[in-house]
Amino acid sequence: MPYREAPGVVIKRLPLYLRTLDKLEQRKKEKVTSQELSGETGFSAEQVRKDLACFGAFGTRGYGYEISSLKEIIIRIIGLHQRIRVFLIGAGQLGTALAKHVITKNSYVSLAGIFDISSNVVGKEIMGQQIRHISELPHLMLWHEVKVAMVTVPSSEAQEVVEFLAGNGITAILNFAPVSLKVPRGVYLQNIDVALELQSLIYYIFPEERRKYQEVLCSRV
Amino acid sequence: MPYREAPGVVIKRLPLYLRTLDKLEQRKKEKVTSQELSGETGFSAEQVRKDLACFGAFGTRGYGYEISSLKEIIIRIIGLHQRIRVFLIGAGQLGTALAKHVITKNSYVSLAGIFDISSNVVGKEIMGQQIRHISELPHLMLWHEVKVAMVTVPSSEAQEVVEFLAGNGITAILNFAPVSLKVPRGVYLQNIDVALELQSLIYYIFPEERRKYQEVLCSRV
Repeated sequence: MPYREAPGVVIKRLPLYLRTLDKLEQRKKEKVTSQELSGETGFSAEQVRKDLACFGAFGTRGYGYEISSLKEIIIRIIGLHQRIRVFLIGAGQLGTALAKHVITKNSYVSLAGIFDISSNVVGKEIMGQQIRHISELPHLMLWHEVKVAMVTVPSSEAQEVVEFLAGNGITAILNFAPVSLKVPRGVYLQNIDVALELQSLIYYIFPEERRKYQEVLCSRV
Repeated sequence: MPYREAPGVVIKRLPLYLRTLDKLEQRKKEKVTSQELSGETGFSAEQVRKDLACFGAFGTRGYGYEISSLKEIIIRIIGLHQRIRVFLIGAGQLGTALAKHVITKNSYVSLAGIFDISSNVVGKEIMGQQIRHISELPHLMLWHEVKVAMVTVPSSEAQEVVEFLAGNGITAILNFAPVSLKVPRGVYLQNIDVALELQSLIYYIFPEERRKYQEVLCSRV
């Protein structure tokens, strides 16, 4: 069978498996069944088995998976065997909240630098780290190999910022600005757009019966 | 053809089409082609045509779609013809940032109430709205029909909070706590889990060639 890349949807599910395995390990469990993983993650047991089989992890009927070896496989696939250093670009309220609540609480990720352009915040500290002017970023890249950035700048500046990041060796960007951005080939961009999530949610406040009558022609997409 | 619900993936793309149409309308454009929508959204032109055809919107070759009528269709399908009132549960740093940057900047959504349990914040104001104790929520529901809530409480409290919301008539929840939650039937839960997004992103910092060798067995999932 030729080597190929795993589908993005599977890759997106791996960190949730990993978090679940970490939790079970903390409870001193040593093995887990696909049914248990299904209960913890909300994916079907069949989906769990298919996802994990992708990476050569096959459970044993009546036993399940050994947690430590399954964790090792997932960590290797994602590439989390060493703590990943992340830059935060934009030290406004959202950026600060994310730095505090997400990065510092995550044992797989650490904050390698915080950047902004506003003289109101450059020089101040968040979580013991000084906020630097973004012009210092290329210099820091000489010292630390950082490949990942979280972008929480205003929409009007986001395109310029991601181009700057891409030009300085960042290859994976998590963008929070509510705007469609273009990145060069070889740079992976993932958007978290809270406003769009909220709007698509609104579709579901209508009862199922009414939703069926809102559209008629959709078969397979 | 029998009535059926639209696939979730299509529903999730609709708000981005709507934002794009809003933007084009502001530029005084009256029509748009699927190619232009593709360029603005990043979806392929074929995907755009298929998505919109779902809801009876068929473009004309060489002309495209009329923006105002396409907007009307999308607004009707999602259910955005009136401003949707949203509760924010959890007035910490992340909740406050989201209230300021997302809800107040969105013309389709408005903030109907902010709730917390901490005596440090209850009674204070964000964006001109007083933060209320969560025990006041059922009372507010008597006055306002609110169906949507954004939850930014600590993981340890999130399950209790969503059950409370579901029990009080909330039917769509956008959860930011990094934990798997269970909701009763009829309640739609969407998670935004920044830590998991960040971790799945890390897979992509490795060059394509190397990624191919990280897994071997995945064919179709």
